[in-house]
Amino acid sequence: MAIPTTADEVRRLDRDHVLHSWSAQAHINPLPIKSASGASFSDYDGNTWLDFASQLVNSNIGHQHPKVVQAIKDQAEKLCFVAPAFANDARSELARLIAERAPGDLNKVFFTNGGAEANENAIRMARVHTGKQKILSAYRSYHGATHTAITATGDPRRWASDNSSTGIVHFFGPYAYRSAFGAKNEAEELERSLGHLEQLVMLEGPGTIAGILLETIVGTNGVLLPPDGYLAGVREICDKYGIMLIADEVMVGFGRVGEWFAINNWGVTPDLLTFAKGVNSGYVPLGGVVMSKAIADTFEDRPFPGGLTYSGHPLACAAGVASIEVFEEEKILEHVKDLGERVLRPRLDKMAVDHPSIGEIRGKGLFFALELVTNRETHEPLVVFNASGADAEPMTKLLAACKERGVWPFTHFNRLHIAPPLVISEEELVRGLDVIDEALKVADEYYTG
Amino acid sequence: MAIPTTADEVRRLDRDHVLHSWSAQAHINPLPIKSASGASFSDYDGNTWLDFASQLVNSNIGHQHPKVVQAIKDQAEKLCFVAPAFANDARSELARLIAERAPGDLNKVFFTNGGAEANENAIRMARVHTGKQKILSAYRSYHGATHTAITATGDPRRWASDNSSTGIVHFFGPYAYRSAFGAKNEAEELERSLGHLEQLVMLEGPGTIAGILLETIVGTNGVLLPPDGYLAGVREICDKYGIMLIADEVMVGFGRVGEWFAINNWGVTPDLLTFAKGVNSGYVPLGGVVMSKAIADTFEDRPFPGGLTYSGHPLACAAGVASIEVFEEEKILEHVKDLGERVLRPRLDKMAVDHPSIGEIRGKGLFFALELVTNRETHEPLVVFNASGADAEPMTKLLAACKERGVWPFTHFNRLHIAPPLVISEEELVRGLDVIDEALKVADEYYTG
Repeated sequence: MAIPTTADEVRRLDRDHVLHSWSAQAHINPLPIKSASGASFSDYDGNTWLDFASQLVNSNIGHQHPKVVQAIKDQAEKLCFVAPAFANDARSELARLIAERAPGDLNKVFFTNGGAEANENAIRMARVHTGKQKILSAYRSYHGATHTAITATGDPRRWASDNSSTGIVHFFGPYAYRSAFGAKNEAEELERSLGHLEQLVMLEGPGTIAGILLETIVGTNGVLLPPDGYLAGVREICDKYGIMLIADEVMVGFGRVGEWFAINNWGVTPDLLTFAKGVNSGYVPLGGVVMSKAIADTFEDRPFPGGLTYSGHPLACAAGVASIEVFEEEKILEHVKDLGERVLRPRLDKMAVDHPSIGEIRGKGLFFALELVTNRETHEPLVVFNASGADAEPMTKLLAACKERGVWPFTHFNRLHIAPPLVISEEELVRGLDVIDEALKVADEYYTG
Repeated sequence: MAIPTTADEVRRLDRDHVLHSWSAQAHINPLPIKSASGASFSDYDGNTWLDFASQLVNSNIGHQHPKVVQAIKDQAEKLCFVAPAFANDARSELARLIAERAPGDLNKVFFTNGGAEANENAIRMARVHTGKQKILSAYRSYHGATHTAITATGDPRRWASDNSSTGIVHFFGPYAYRSAFGAKNEAEELERSLGHLEQLVMLEGPGTIAGILLETIVGTNGVLLPPDGYLAGVREICDKYGIMLIADEVMVGFGRVGEWFAINNWGVTPDLLTFAKGVNSGYVPLGGVVMSKAIADTFEDRPFPGGLTYSGHPLACAAGVASIEVFEEEKILEHVKDLGERVLRPRLDKMAVDHPSIGEIRGKGLFFALELVTNRETHEPLVVFNASGADAEPMTKLLAACKERGVWPFTHFNRLHIAPPLVISEEELVRGLDVIDEALKVADEYYTG
């Protein structure tokens, strides 16, 4: 018995014994990764890629940050685990650090192992707190893969599991480039998307709705930034009808867009905010919910009807404490804002001039999407919605062109997302953008507009 | 910013910023734990307890095992995280080790962060594989707290979340001491519980049922061992009607009852087996599902519709590999069988003679329950079902009597469970049992029979 040391053996055991997420196993060939550092990772043959996806948009602090690694080693030496019913120093401190950074009166944390469980528990809290059942969530969203979380999800990953009523109703969020409301500009989209949501609340019955769940910035489904005024408008609807606002910041929390929490950009306070990924960059599985005083108070005398063995895991929390300390010491939020506005956005704007296939560029901080089209007038997407196999060829080729040149971006449907570790240097960022600039010629070949 | 170093500060931050599982926050006072080693843990005042609950029945290998701690430190140094889409050496190896130890043709693993997600995904697999929706699960069971998992749960923790149809139907499992079938002995209970299950399958419609989910040995709800023949009988029903048998081994897998998987005691092969806790003793959050070849084959050409960011987490898997190696080196399974039969069971049998409040003793390996009663004839429980507050006083006092004497057992309703780390020494086990023996006088005072 020993951990295998060759790529062939890693691959063979993986093929024989591991089932991979969201995949038809016969059609994948998972690459064995040997090491990773900062903004890069490497295979067993010495090939190295710039990680322009931060794995699954979670390696915010970069790979193998020495201070976080050391914190894990120190905590492992001290105390790997204690049950949630006890108090633990690392957990106490991380809860304080998160509470201090969370918007408004969000001050108390329930820890989970990841984002799906965070959303499951936020929904549970909204339901118990309001005494109502229904949850509204957006089309074009992802909230995780446990039952309620996947049912709340508004992308095709939901379809296979959407087998029963869990009290979720989907609405359309603002997306001016492909408006569901026939809007011609951002102002119309803002007005109509809020009007749509309020009509939906009226018709579903405000007395039945516990919460509105949304990604502050929609992540995998398109880096869709809410227009200014949208979140404030949703907050107003929630206040008017006694509905809890649940902000899913699993992907955009902890610095991705240059703030501790993305919602801080718009000065809006949700009732519940869920996090995972960036809280400790996935070095140890961790997620959670931070809640308002009113919701915390609900569970003072009434038991909170949820829990999990690894809630507030000491090793995971210690990694979180170290990560937040590093963010402060290395001024990572400032770095994200600077690189995003000074380097990334201008360069993407220039690419949009050079590449006809770029229909729209959206983003903030170090989180951008290039929406690729075959026609800039009609916005015809480069590949159809939920494309797979031959239908997805233009995107498959674009991705391959990036990888061949040493950059590993994230692609989804007709979009290429840029989400590198937040510690990426200017030189690395520019080098990666040069590659994407070159690779986009592949997409341009499909342009017909 | 620094991790607090005093119990007062740990407690203050915990009170201010942490929401604890399953609790009314104003009514708990979580004890800050400073350290743990082997079968014991200690607070900041130097008080030490024998951990007779293995925290939440997860610290199978004991606290801070040096080889597992070292494996975590080594892996942290090497590679903390890589996305599930890649292959990873520690994940490949752990999948192999689990597959080799799993019963029958269960050979492929989908990794999750814990037991709830393991059950969620096992249910998903059964549904996709059979094309059917309904899941039968047992009353007196616990399967986790995400939506489907808590709905499958058959204890009061389900009630607050049981808000919509998730296609779960509950059945009664065998429990001769409190038979739901009026059985007078184990043989009758076996026959009637299987008859009940088959009637339920018939009336719910075999063509609608994807799976039967059960804890191989019911854990928190009573250490209920299936009578010989029960699991084989359920297997037969499943085969007859094309239903997947899902064995939840989150609590009893990985040595708790002296086998890698508890179901190996009865020579039955489920279609899906879920695990967490003991796989790496919770040193790093980890769970998973191991599946039959037929189910794995279903996802060769059809995408598996589930996933999570931390699936197959390298740090968690490295801890699992080290843990299994230690189990082998230290012959832990043999130790469990030996201590369980030579020391624990005889001593509990003797206690049952001495303490009228012991109605029944059940268990195997290092996993036993003392079912406490006020009357041995009527089996009247020491406290009512789901007792809290003043109603729970006899159990609260019993628990306090154990803790005062340096033993921290697990209590649930009218039962005291014994589930120490599997590395506990004979001396420690006897010392702990001496305390419980003494403390049981508290329960005897309530005996009225």
